[in-house]
Amino acid sequence: MGTICGVEMTYSAIEVLRLGHRVGRDPRITTHLALVSRAMGADQFTLAGDMDEKLFENIASVNERFGHGITCRHEQSPMKMLKQVAKSDDELRPLIIHLTMYGEPFKPTIAKLPKNRPVLVVVGGAKVPAELFSISDYNIAVGNQPHSEVAALALFLDCWTEGAGFERQYQNPQLVISPSKSGKDVKEV
Amino acid sequence: MGTICGVEMTYSAIEVLRLGHRVGRDPRITTHLALVSRAMGADQFTLAGDMDEKLFENIASVNERFGHGITCRHEQSPMKMLKQVAKSDDELRPLIIHLTMYGEPFKPTIAKLPKNRPVLVVVGGAKVPAELFSISDYNIAVGNQPHSEVAALALFLDCWTEGAGFERQYQNPQLVISPSKSGKDVKEV
Repeated sequence: MGTICGVEMTYSAIEVLRLGHRVGRDPRITTHLALVSRAMGADQFTLAGDMDEKLFENIASVNERFGHGITCRHEQSPMKMLKQVAKSDDELRPLIIHLTMYGEPFKPTIAKLPKNRPVLVVVGGAKVPAELFSISDYNIAVGNQPHSEVAALALFLDCWTEGAGFERQYQNPQLVISPSKSGKDVKEV
Repeated sequence: MGTICGVEMTYSAIEVLRLGHRVGRDPRITTHLALVSRAMGADQFTLAGDMDEKLFENIASVNERFGHGITCRHEQSPMKMLKQVAKSDDELRPLIIHLTMYGEPFKPTIAKLPKNRPVLVVVGGAKVPAELFSISDYNIAVGNQPHSEVAALALFLDCWTEGAGFERQYQNPQLVISPSKSGKDVKEV
């Protein structure tokens, strides 16, 4: 717990790695992945596949308006990065958790995992290298039906943080939304 | 609970209504909404906005390969449909639940709702008519930060069904995926 990557966390630091982004086809799905990461407790969003400056600008704009919550960067060699993490002998290296519809059921698996470790959550793209299954510490399925990597990431993060991801504080927001039964309650700060 | 819409449910029947679909811009997000609906316990996915035959074909193909799980249809007049539901004096009419980042926190709100009622979950599009807030029985927020309607729907359904949405049985699948620690375990039936 404590501070990891300079961010004070009430739970382990969380990095989300999106593999195989394609600028022409995936911008909205990947933007949703980044926004879910930001809204649910991750502090780092790492994009692999195509670099996408427009996507990073969109997330920076959300950080500026609704408060700083996530850092984005592009990773040229995600499999090399994952192998380096996996072979590290640091006891507190991040757990590599691969979200896949072929994996083990997420809730009972998460319940067994140590919570004092940072996590690196890997979200696949169109084609995932087969070796990802062996490099990852855990292959976790959010249901074994085809649905959505955005949904899978959200359900994983909600379970991992036990709902606390939504209670995160954002730095220097310009806009704050307060819960309302009947309409929009937005304050400019 | 019993059978609703001809589907045996262990919880109330669930319909998801997607407003304001735009064929040119939203096909993947709306497809993810339909697949999340299918994978997490909804039995009806209703598309408003543009008609999109290709999207319906995609979902039909998933039903055929992984088992029948959801029925799709297009609704020309979604606000009229919602008003008719809202003014019905049938005690067991569906609860209209509007997912919006401006609403009340989802978990405590869902905990207070009657579970013997079907639900009609409304997922907004690019622009939502202001009157939707007053027509809906509940305006529910899955966090008050901008993120993703796909994530919001998934978290709502998981909470509403208390995780049971994932335990659904699918009719006549050609392919069945079994959970696996280390790779793909797919059986042709």
